[in-house]
Amino acid sequence: MKTGSSAIDRLVAQLSKLPGVGEKTARRFAFHILNAPEAYAEELAGAIIDIRRRTRLCSLCCNVTEEDPCDICRSSHRDGQVVCVVERPTDVLAIDKTGEYRGLYHVLHGVISPLDGIGPDDIKLAPLLARLRDSSIREVIVATNPSVNGEATATYIHRLVAPLGIQVTRIALGIPVGADIEFADKVTLGRALAQRRPI
Amino acid sequence: MKTGSSAIDRLVAQLSKLPGVGEKTARRFAFHILNAPEAYAEELAGAIIDIRRRTRLCSLCCNVTEEDPCDICRSSHRDGQVVCVVERPTDVLAIDKTGEYRGLYHVLHGVISPLDGIGPDDIKLAPLLARLRDSSIREVIVATNPSVNGEATATYIHRLVAPLGIQVTRIALGIPVGADIEFADKVTLGRALAQRRPI
Repeated sequence: MKTGSSAIDRLVAQLSKLPGVGEKTARRFAFHILNAPEAYAEELAGAIIDIRRRTRLCSLCCNVTEEDPCDICRSSHRDGQVVCVVERPTDVLAIDKTGEYRGLYHVLHGVISPLDGIGPDDIKLAPLLARLRDSSIREVIVATNPSVNGEATATYIHRLVAPLGIQVTRIALGIPVGADIEFADKVTLGRALAQRRPI
Repeated sequence: MKTGSSAIDRLVAQLSKLPGVGEKTARRFAFHILNAPEAYAEELAGAIIDIRRRTRLCSLCCNVTEEDPCDICRSSHRDGQVVCVVERPTDVLAIDKTGEYRGLYHVLHGVISPLDGIGPDDIKLAPLLARLRDSSIREVIVATNPSVNGEATATYIHRLVAPLGIQVTRIALGIPVGADIEFADKVTLGRALAQRRPI
């Protein structure tokens, strides 16, 4: 549905490309920007340009950062012997927020996905191996998503890393805390049973 | 939750101001912009700046437009004797999309809302009256929202416009098409009964 203003239509088209944003929501955003104080549009546009200009990937862990190496890699308060391998920078935030983990990270920026034409060379596996070769790292925790591709990537990493004499572990899969066993899907419930542990 | 990059945090803060967008969604948007092709960030930022720079209000109907008067006011295919009064530019789009209306519009940019300190002078009522005084308009359809303030504004407009010898009508309120009478709220159902009409 055209608004009659090409400037609005153009912004709606750009906003519609954001994840989960349809045309209706995009139009709502566009009119919000139009009606907001003038400074808001400028600040928002500036922040969008800045995020591309000021960030890069950490040369150690491949996480998004403004300084290289990133805060986490530079920190002296972290356990430098453990690396948690994740798919996305947002996974680093989620895991760090738990407070259960104080080691380092490695961001793959994807998983191996043959059907989508994504092979081992298309994700940040080479930097991970280079990093593991000359380091004191003794454990790699693979925290890719429990999807088909995430599991395959975990297996692939195990095969690459185990020969280096480094332990490779996988995050536990099971019933989410607070969930109902009755409504758990059978694959998850099966995993939770198979991976049961003594109390 | 901070990402460790002030550029990302700043964009997340700006995106969080969009309607219905919380911090988590804003972060998802920010990482999407970060991972999208470079041209996207520039096009999005450009479109945001442009929407403020290139649009203004139509001097006749107060709708957002790039050219003054706007497309609708300039059109020779519309019934220039009817004006539909709405709250927002998006209401114009919604009504025009029905295909049931081919008259002109007038955008109030709000409704009278004493509790929020918004009086008749804070919305585009004066331009409406000026427009009605020297024109061939014979009907004003008030299509403000069926809220307390929308109804009050409709009554206010009726009081102003009726003395000019112009008919003032209100859009019908009732059961939405396809809805279940069983689950309709009692106010809507009451209106639908009161405004019943012969088949």
